[in-house]
Amino acid sequence: MAEEKVVLVGRKPVMNYVMACLTFFNSGADEVTIKARGRAISRAVDTVELMRKAFMKDLEIKDIRIGTEQMERPDGSKVNVSTMEILIAKPK
Amino acid sequence: MAEEKVVLVGRKPVMNYVMACLTFFNSGADEVTIKARGRAISRAVDTVELMRKAFMKDLEIKDIRIGTEQMERPDGSKVNVSTMEILIAKPK
Repeated sequence: MAEEKVVLVGRKPVMNYVMACLTFFNSGADEVTIKARGRAISRAVDTVELMRKAFMKDLEIKDIRIGTEQMERPDGSKVNVSTMEILIAKPK
Repeated sequence: MAEEKVVLVGRKPVMNYVMACLTFFNSGADEVTIKARGRAISRAVDTVELMRKAFMKDLEIKDIRIGTEQMERPDGSKVNVSTMEILIAKPK
């Protein structure tokens, strides 16, 4: 099985993550997983939508998964954070 | 076909939207669609995750769709906004 290609979406401009995905595809990857947590989730959706509109019109969305991760704050308290993973694939 | 039950997620606290979903389910709905645009997308995911963790452990996520909507600003210019719809269903 091929190594999973992951783009982790954070607080940078959406275009940075679009470029990261395109770089994976251009270097031969068939699939890329876009992951985000908390407020970055909407930016992960923006990334996929911008790719579809501007760069790869036939981009396939193979799966969208949501979940929860427990994170520890610096003070030791725990907090639940929503997560999302979007699996996208190059058109064949 | 039954009327579609929709909860539109905006800027209110997550618990408001959880209560809206539970009200639909308690009044007989089998499925509820949670819709959000832009930054509210992460709150839509929070809504589903909180429902799963706290209220309906067997909640089924039947579909997650993402898309783009073109909106007009007050000055007449157009802007693309990402959208998400999550279709959830009561466990049988």
